[in-house]
Order: sequence, then structure tokens, then C-alpha cells
Amino acid sequence: MRFIDLSHPLRDGLPSFPGDPVLRIEPHCTTASEARCNVSRVAMGTHQGTHLDAMFHFVEDGRTLDQMPLEWFYGPARVLRIPKAAGEDITVEDFAKHEEHLTEGARILFDTGWQREFGTPQFFKDFPSMTQEAARYLASRKLRLIGMDTPTPGRDYYEVHHILLAKEVEMVIVEGLAHLDQLPDEEFTFIGFPLNFAGRDGSPIRAVAMVD
Amino acid sequence: MRFIDLSHPLRDGLPSFPGDPVLRIEPHCTTASEARCNVSRVAMGTHQGTHLDAMFHFVEDGRTLDQMPLEWFYGPARVLRIPKAAGEDITVEDFAKHEEHLTEGARILFDTGWQREFGTPQFFKDFPSMTQEAARYLASRKLRLIGMDTPTPGRDYYEVHHILLAKEVEMVIVEGLAHLDQLPDEEFTFIGFPLNFAGRDGSPIRAVAMVD
Repeated sequence: MRFIDLSHPLRDGLPSFPGDPVLRIEPHCTTASEARCNVSRVAMGTHQGTHLDAMFHFVEDGRTLDQMPLEWFYGPARVLRIPKAAGEDITVEDFAKHEEHLTEGARILFDTGWQREFGTPQFFKDFPSMTQEAARYLASRKLRLIGMDTPTPGRDYYEVHHILLAKEVEMVIVEGLAHLDQLPDEEFTFIGFPLNFAGRDGSPIRAVAMVD
Repeated sequence: MRFIDLSHPLRDGLPSFPGDPVLRIEPHCTTASEARCNVSRVAMGTHQGTHLDAMFHFVEDGRTLDQMPLEWFYGPARVLRIPKAAGEDITVEDFAKHEEHLTEGARILFDTGWQREFGTPQFFKDFPSMTQEAARYLASRKLRLIGMDTPTPGRDYYEVHHILLAKEVEMVIVEGLAHLDQLPDEEFTFIGFPLNFAGRDGSPIRAVAMVD
């Protein structure tokens, strides 16, 4: 059994989604200070780096982090290879060719190759983008979790999030995943529990794949 | 298989270890704002709530979060029941009676009952406190991870952390655990991956027990 780290490191000044809080990670005290130990202070948004969305991110009466069962964040998963150029659409066809794996309760990650832009402002511009039709298709397959290497599922933020986070769908959305290219073609175990910012909308996660 | 949440919820204004940053969790934008979605901003210390220590917390040339293998944060674990009154010492004898479980590489959580004070300033005062001798005993047993419901292992912060985090020991320390009283007497799987604040000293975690 081995682990593959699916989270990008968090570093001071890492670019954020436009309009989101800037990530600051700074020493608060050090081994040379009166406290004689290193403690850091962090300022961040709840959708910083590799993170997941609670339904409440877009759905005002949707589930907050503390209302999401822990079972949702742990279990069998698969990666789909859907390589895309900057700005290219991710379509129903891109997903439908993997239909055998898109079963009720499945956890699916998809690798567009866009992690190559992580850490640059470009990451948030012109990313490969799921169409509204593709989001509706995924919702119809009743997946438990959809994860991706892009910063957000699609450029139609509002519509795509509402399709996936709706009351009758409640799909966990994991964004900004790393190292999807290192995953095997076979099933693995996905682990990615959010911090419990009770009543809130999302959390950075340490996403990990456990591979046999 | 079921999950037990071992992390306390994080809420705006939750008391911190004296001198540490105050926890703030506030709306950054809302569904009623121009962004049409809920995003929060978080300000916190790296040792906020249920969290773990990297060696670098006290050992200046010790491992930072990104230098700790993911294997350390996942695996078989046991809880020890060591009920204690406020301010009471946790001694070598308290641990030694469980010696059969204190084996090389083991993950051990201990439940003093102090979670009853979590969320109050009292939590950080007069907590049950591991003696330096007890810390040396745990170090000699070469545990992989020690977790507890208290905010820090012992009131001799400096000495106890140096004993457990030393280069030749490198024990993961998990502090402020919740719901240890719900754990079975039998072995379970502990999961508690830190956020990867690269180069830094600790991280809040969503600690979880997976129970058969």
C-alpha cells in the first residue's frame, strides 16, 4: 500500500481565484522568540488551493461542511484521462465514453493536464471547462464526488455549480487536485476530509490516494 | 464500516492557545453579493483546534509538514482510557499498564476526559499533563503517533515537545482530539492528514476513526 499526494503545497502568496482572499502564511513566533517554538499564522479563503465545495457554496439552503457525512470523503475512486488544451470544452462525450465507471455513488477524478498551470495566475484563466450539458450528464449519473485538476468545473460557474450542488444531486466537488497523472488506471481509495469550518462553504483538503 | 469524527468544529472566535492567533471565520462573499456564492475567509494559527505538530514546531532543523511521509498519518490505532482530573499528572505508570499496545510504529490516542473543557479558556489552563518521564517512556517505545484530548502533552511544553519531536524519535503529536470516548476498545484506523503548509510547523486536521 502506498500513498499519492493529490494536494498542491500551500505557500505564502500562492495566487487565489480572482476576488478570493490572498493566501498568507507567516511566522507568528519562532524558536528564537520568547515562545521558543515555531507557530505560523494563516490567512486564506475556504476555496484556496486543493479544496472541496460544500453545497452551501452556491445553494443558500444547501449542506454546510458540518452537515456532510464523513463517508462522502473516503472510498473507492477512479481517474479518467481527459487531456485538454487551454480553454477547451469538456463535453458529455468526454465523460460518456467512460460510462461504465460513472455509476451511482462513484468517486471520479478527471485529469485534463491543467495542473501544469498551478501556482500561476494563468491557472485561473482559460482553463478547460465543463459544459452545462456535461454537468447535467454527471448529475444524472448520481456520482458521489467529482474531482478535477482545474480550479473550478466550468466557466459557467453559477450554472455548473448549481447543477452539481443541487438538493437532489449533492455531489462533492473537489477542485485543484495535483498529480492525477500519477494515479493508476485501476480503482484506488480516495481520501479527502475537509476541515470542519462549521456552518461554512468549503475547505482546503489534503487529498490523498491510497493505492495497493 | 463507520466513521467517528475526532475533530472539534472550528467556529469564529474559538479560544486559542494563549499567545496564538485568534480564529476568525467570516463571510467573504455571499449568494446575495455580486459573486452570487458563499466564500469565507479564515485567519488562524497552525496549531488551532484539533491539529498536529511537525517536528519543526520545536526542533529548528526538524521535519516540516511537507517532509513528513503520508504513511505517518494513516493506519491502525488504539485508544487508552486514562481519566484525569484538572491539573493531574499523566505518569509513566498510566502508560506502562498498556505496554502490550505501546509497540514500535504504533498509533496511540489517550482519553483523559479533558475534551469536556474544549471551547472554553479553561481548556488551556490546568489540563492533565504528561510528565517529562512519561514523555521519555513514550519515546523509548518508538510510537509513530501520540494523540490526546488535551491542548498540549504537558505543562513542561518545551521539554516534552523536544523529547517527542527529537530527530531520533520524530513522533507525530496530535492535540485537541474530540470524541475519544466514542472509540471502541479494539483497534481502528486513524486518519488525520495535515494541510501541506510547506516549510511550516503544524496544521489543523480533520481527524477521523474508521471502525469496522
